[in-house]
Amino acid sequence: MLLLERDLIQSVGFRNVREGDAVVGFQFRVRMPSYRGMAASLIDGIAVRVGDIVEVGPEVPLWTFGGRTYTLQELWDSDGVRWPLEEPAIVTVPFPGGLPEGTHEVSIELRLRMSYIPEEHQPSRYEESRHITLTSSEEGGPFKYGVSLYSFMTDFGTVMDLETALAAVADVGATGVEILGEGHIEGYPEPTTEWVDRWFALLEKYSLEPTNYGSWIDTRLHSRGPNAREYTAAEGAATLQRDLRLAKRLGFRFVRPKIGVVSSDLIPHPTWTEAVERSLDLAHQLDVVICPEIHAPTPIKHQVVDDYVALIERTGTRHFGLLLDTGIFQDRPIPLKPGELPGRRPAFMDGIAVDPADIADIARYVVFIQAKFHDIDENLEDQQIPWEPVLRALKDAGYTGYLSSEYEGVRTPWRSIEQVRRQHSLLRSIASRL
Amino acid sequence: MLLLERDLIQSVGFRNVREGDAVVGFQFRVRMPSYRGMAASLIDGIAVRVGDIVEVGPEVPLWTFGGRTYTLQELWDSDGVRWPLEEPAIVTVPFPGGLPEGTHEVSIELRLRMSYIPEEHQPSRYEESRHITLTSSEEGGPFKYGVSLYSFMTDFGTVMDLETALAAVADVGATGVEILGEGHIEGYPEPTTEWVDRWFALLEKYSLEPTNYGSWIDTRLHSRGPNAREYTAAEGAATLQRDLRLAKRLGFRFVRPKIGVVSSDLIPHPTWTEAVERSLDLAHQLDVVICPEIHAPTPIKHQVVDDYVALIERTGTRHFGLLLDTGIFQDRPIPLKPGELPGRRPAFMDGIAVDPADIADIARYVVFIQAKFHDIDENLEDQQIPWEPVLRALKDAGYTGYLSSEYEGVRTPWRSIEQVRRQHSLLRSIASRL
Repeated sequence: MLLLERDLIQSVGFRNVREGDAVVGFQFRVRMPSYRGMAASLIDGIAVRVGDIVEVGPEVPLWTFGGRTYTLQELWDSDGVRWPLEEPAIVTVPFPGGLPEGTHEVSIELRLRMSYIPEEHQPSRYEESRHITLTSSEEGGPFKYGVSLYSFMTDFGTVMDLETALAAVADVGATGVEILGEGHIEGYPEPTTEWVDRWFALLEKYSLEPTNYGSWIDTRLHSRGPNAREYTAAEGAATLQRDLRLAKRLGFRFVRPKIGVVSSDLIPHPTWTEAVERSLDLAHQLDVVICPEIHAPTPIKHQVVDDYVALIERTGTRHFGLLLDTGIFQDRPIPLKPGELPGRRPAFMDGIAVDPADIADIARYVVFIQAKFHDIDENLEDQQIPWEPVLRALKDAGYTGYLSSEYEGVRTPWRSIEQVRRQHSLLRSIASRL
Repeated sequence: MLLLERDLIQSVGFRNVREGDAVVGFQFRVRMPSYRGMAASLIDGIAVRVGDIVEVGPEVPLWTFGGRTYTLQELWDSDGVRWPLEEPAIVTVPFPGGLPEGTHEVSIELRLRMSYIPEEHQPSRYEESRHITLTSSEEGGPFKYGVSLYSFMTDFGTVMDLETALAAVADVGATGVEILGEGHIEGYPEPTTEWVDRWFALLEKYSLEPTNYGSWIDTRLHSRGPNAREYTAAEGAATLQRDLRLAKRLGFRFVRPKIGVVSSDLIPHPTWTEAVERSLDLAHQLDVVICPEIHAPTPIKHQVVDDYVALIERTGTRHFGLLLDTGIFQDRPIPLKPGELPGRRPAFMDGIAVDPADIADIARYVVFIQAKFHDIDENLEDQQIPWEPVLRALKDAGYTGYLSSEYEGVRTPWRSIEQVRRQHSLLRSIASRL
């Protein structure tokens, strides 16, 4: 059973509908508002309005249950067709040409007949209005599109299980999925064979390929207590190699080790070079690329990046590269949280505004992009990240890899799902215009 | 993977801890606040305060992972002990005698070391305070205690799957679980053998017995469109019999058919008698009791109840009885919803305040109680239902069956879990004082 969004109107599943070459309408999913599933003949229709673009009466939309589509009249005459509690209805509105790309305010008035409520209070009516984003129809080349399950932080495990998360990723039209090893792999670092089999079954079901696997080199692992001791390069190498092997086993091509730091500007722990160099043979053997991230507050022009590049140049390896987190391009502040005082948080929360032109200098080492973002409004305007110059610089630099969504905004339940949809719509439409 | 509550402090799992005959402390579960799981040696402790009863520093509580319990010092020295993202830590506070029964304000300050954050911002601190309710230690006789999954309406399918729901039920110390057939059975009315096997496996895992199964006789099934027609007694009987068989297959002993009504005071559709009478042989054969509910706005002294009793007397059946919904005893109004205007909703929302003394008249026919409620505050005061006289009347009438929680209050996500805990604590403590 997939978990559903709390609103009746689901974000996942909102799309234009094609028949052959023509777009004939749009569809979205609706969660059953009652506490029970019911026979579909008890549906009294659903009126639908989308902004000032289209408005239809309750008898117009088509209903899909169990893969079959019905008119309202057909539902009234049906026997045994059911709207189960655990499955959303798919509501299709005929609308030649379909809706324009982007976010729309969808309003519904749903009517259901309850046999056990006096007639004078019937049908039961459920009204809701919500901004949701169409699955984009733009190709969005030259980039590939993915989602990191990091985007669903706090939702994962509370309102989403693994399959629900992967279904949401696939529904934006993404082809790649990024995970955090110690986070999304049940039983990490030794998942059961059953878990691994299910992982591949889900990838196949949702047509997703594994992209990047996030790992950690926890240099403060034993920094407390009477037996505290320094972290060693041998430990770092062992950890990295364990994750390289597990990543490979799960089909990933990139591993991002998040390395412990020793300074305010994120200088990695001095053991990092040895830990990485000891692991390059294994990375080569597994054909997995180790790619630490360039992450705010570290800009591109920085000793940390120079050191990473130096390692590549020195070893000649093709299995070490750079992962670029687009948070470095943030040029407007993240709003203060309720109760948060200005000046009390790290300054980089206001954005370090790296010039996208800097990408050119390191582009040949960049193997993966985490498309970090915080808030995209219903007009598809990102409030922090200047996507147009960033994507232009990436394209000009010849990058054709993944843009892997990393939503890092407000953790209101279910918000991440719709925010990721907005980002994909925004990125694809910008890329298609470049 | 069980889904967790959104708050770090989980309601489920809050209990006093016994060693032999002595209560040695209390424990509760904490969700990992990071976006990743991590080695438990990165924990820097958790300070805990419970109201003005107990307050301990971060080094005091014990930690349980994977069934083993550790001191903080032991965690610091550990290798390979992990706090996975998907599993709550169990935090145990030594406190001889334990906490008093009921709801407590639990406050935590949790500290975790992140290797990748500059030292000056470390450890990361997570503060939270929340009212949660202890699993009751009261026997609560002469009644048995159950929960209807109806309590989790809207949570079920969005923040809870079946196992998460059953785990929450078991954690209040309930022994019985009530479901809605067309609601909690995936693939209703024909669940797969796999689903049925899993159902029994979960009942065994959580030591629960099936109690009552809710069904519907949807008399308005074909009341719309050109082909509209009246519902027949034969259809009613077929539906009821289908549910009796499915209920029996899943181990239930009671089936509550919710019968379509034809009047404002919930007079059932005239076909009900024939539908039920045609099904009595099957009910006898399956040893399942059919028990329609007495539900507000219908009081006990009412034609509807008289007719049910008449059927029992006329047929002499032991497989038809009454289900009492405690909503009829509601004697204070349910607060208006935001934006709801007074006088615009059915009057019974203010409570029909049936005198609990009326129970005596029908007690010998009552086979099951749905313990309907809406809001219990942190002082364990129910805002609508006068439990003391209700439970006293039930006890005096010799009722020794289930009190099956039906939470029907505000549907804020996760609220139902804690409300059910409060009700069980409240009911058991009242029953134990009677």
